[in-house]
Amino acid sequence: MPLFKFAISKKDRDSGARLGRLETAHGGVDTPVFMAVGTQGTVKGMTPRQLSDCGVGMVLGNTYHLMLRPGSERIAQLGGLHRFMAWDGPILTDSGGFQVFSLADLTKRDDRGVTFRSHIDGDLIRLDPERSMKVQRDLGSDVVMAFDDCTPYPADHAATRASMALTHRWADHSLNYFQGGHQSLFGIVQGGMYADLRDASVRELCAKPFAGFAVGGLSVGEPKELMYPILRHTAPQLPEDKPRYLMGVGTPADLVNAVSAGIDMFDCVMPTRNARNGYAFTSEGPVSIKQAAHKDSDLPLDPNCDCYTCTRFTRAYLNHIYRAGEILASVLMTLHNLSFYQNLMANMRRAIAADRFPAFKEQILQVYGARDILDYTLPDNATIEAHARNVEDHPSCG
Amino acid sequence: MPLFKFAISKKDRDSGARLGRLETAHGGVDTPVFMAVGTQGTVKGMTPRQLSDCGVGMVLGNTYHLMLRPGSERIAQLGGLHRFMAWDGPILTDSGGFQVFSLADLTKRDDRGVTFRSHIDGDLIRLDPERSMKVQRDLGSDVVMAFDDCTPYPADHAATRASMALTHRWADHSLNYFQGGHQSLFGIVQGGMYADLRDASVRELCAKPFAGFAVGGLSVGEPKELMYPILRHTAPQLPEDKPRYLMGVGTPADLVNAVSAGIDMFDCVMPTRNARNGYAFTSEGPVSIKQAAHKDSDLPLDPNCDCYTCTRFTRAYLNHIYRAGEILASVLMTLHNLSFYQNLMANMRRAIAADRFPAFKEQILQVYGARDILDYTLPDNATIEAHARNVEDHPSCG
Repeated sequence: MPLFKFAISKKDRDSGARLGRLETAHGGVDTPVFMAVGTQGTVKGMTPRQLSDCGVGMVLGNTYHLMLRPGSERIAQLGGLHRFMAWDGPILTDSGGFQVFSLADLTKRDDRGVTFRSHIDGDLIRLDPERSMKVQRDLGSDVVMAFDDCTPYPADHAATRASMALTHRWADHSLNYFQGGHQSLFGIVQGGMYADLRDASVRELCAKPFAGFAVGGLSVGEPKELMYPILRHTAPQLPEDKPRYLMGVGTPADLVNAVSAGIDMFDCVMPTRNARNGYAFTSEGPVSIKQAAHKDSDLPLDPNCDCYTCTRFTRAYLNHIYRAGEILASVLMTLHNLSFYQNLMANMRRAIAADRFPAFKEQILQVYGARDILDYTLPDNATIEAHARNVEDHPSCG
Repeated sequence: MPLFKFAISKKDRDSGARLGRLETAHGGVDTPVFMAVGTQGTVKGMTPRQLSDCGVGMVLGNTYHLMLRPGSERIAQLGGLHRFMAWDGPILTDSGGFQVFSLADLTKRDDRGVTFRSHIDGDLIRLDPERSMKVQRDLGSDVVMAFDDCTPYPADHAATRASMALTHRWADHSLNYFQGGHQSLFGIVQGGMYADLRDASVRELCAKPFAGFAVGGLSVGEPKELMYPILRHTAPQLPEDKPRYLMGVGTPADLVNAVSAGIDMFDCVMPTRNARNGYAFTSEGPVSIKQAAHKDSDLPLDPNCDCYTCTRFTRAYLNHIYRAGEILASVLMTLHNLSFYQNLMANMRRAIAADRFPAFKEQILQVYGARDILDYTLPDNATIEAHARNVEDHPSCG
């Protein structure tokens, strides 16, 4: 019997936002939740203790990376991913499909799965629903993602439909090969930027016995003008009583907008990757620590943050160690960004609880100079296809 | 009035080892003490909290690096090095002399000081006793080192004597420009590998009002056959009631050998640098974590270590994140190596207190396959000069 439970404790009266609790065999998290990305079995630069100190409650691991190195069977023999990376909270693993398209040298894609060359050593590797379920079982994650076909952007309607059909077939295969135990399986809705296809994907997938549902194929290079309206169109159609997960998103503005559309779970490399590149998210907007303006600043990165970095170090210090190429710059910036994201989620949950979510969302959108998801309307399919044709040489699923 | 105090609480009956306590305006440490090297205002990869968790009590900062970037006046304006790097324990700063010879493009060396080009931007910079004292005053370290001329290896007797004379002159200049306050000034004994010159340097410097004395010019590329006997010859001549500091040394075997010769203080990049290169010091000897043999090992790095790394992570995990190029590999390996060094010092202090230091020293020497400092005898000057002539193209002061 899976120990997985999900319960909504409150729905926002003014938006689609939901307050909830996700329970797994490795403990629970309040939703909406932001998962830190631990691609290769580590959230880059963070010890598990530091993750907890930042307020991180749930971590994402990457099936693709871990199956290539160190290998999922090795991790299984060492007691599973939780023990391997010394993280005893909940873990979600993706299916590997997204990375095959974005990182690997894809050599063949057929009805049953994909064949690709490893980006590490060039080995020829097969990944399909059966293998993805096996690898995620080896890893022992609490939430397993179905193996899907990530539709690239741009893609015309016909190609998007064909890709979606593959995702639906693989959803069935994933359900067949998934064995349960302490794990739960989520389905992934595709359909690109096309409302009719998203509707079809929701109809098809939500009838199946998944424990939760993800919106896939967004944040793959498309403009907000397409992402926001298709998200707002899709998210509310997902089952009310199951967690809704928006994969690979996003900025603070994306998070409040997506929560207002009814999303419960997020993951994104943005707080961690930007940290290593010297970019901080703060209550006053983005800060680029490498700028010379910070050289003499005795201000903290964020005056409204109580994280380890902000309570101990000045911008001048962070500027210095960043410019000096010190590892500690990555560490301290990551500590802050993860804390900021966790605080953002906690503040959203408090705002929903106190019936002031719209005002909170408005404040975040203002600070980050972003527009409200409600301001966008969905273009018709012909307009989207025309838009897609104008995108040249865009990296797909990036 | 400086708050600096040093007291010896016990002398080992079987060796020159001493148990003591060093007090500064920023707290005290038990001696023998190993200082972690925080070159650019950070012990690479470690937060101050992690340093404390490893048992680190005192940190070394590099005058040369910090004067070039971010600049000592900037650090002074930001409240000094302690506040800048958020380390509230004792800090010792070196004089900058060693790095000028090892890192910078030295363009001129005269009786008053040195002129060099920065290794960062090629700027022409002057460093002399006055400037070194000023920079270290800006940094606000608790222990300030006199500006010295680090004699390279190899060097013949005449060149070593000339270099030593410069060090003695600069020792007077350093004393002249040193202002006191909460800071204390240490002198540096030079004299290369020549016993008569070391004797002369001790006679000359130990008559001056320094708060402590360092043995400089060792671990600059010379073989143990020269370093050990000249250390054993020099250390016991330093004043009994003042701290004795062996600069830039060394391996675990070096530390027990030097403590047995009467040294109280150490610094070295070895635990931190080796950690980043995948080399661990353990109670069972050195471990190279990148070796394939560790890929499936569920053992900790060191079964006898209670550090964060060893109590939570397997060798298999450390091997994986090292090979994957993850920052966390540097962090976890550094955490262990610093903990190992601090435990080594704590165990030495316990052994001295319990009158079992020689046995403890013997055990460390066995584990690390090293010889006892007592097994070495000092060659005569002619032999040393001959030895030096046979060293070709050796990097000096490396």
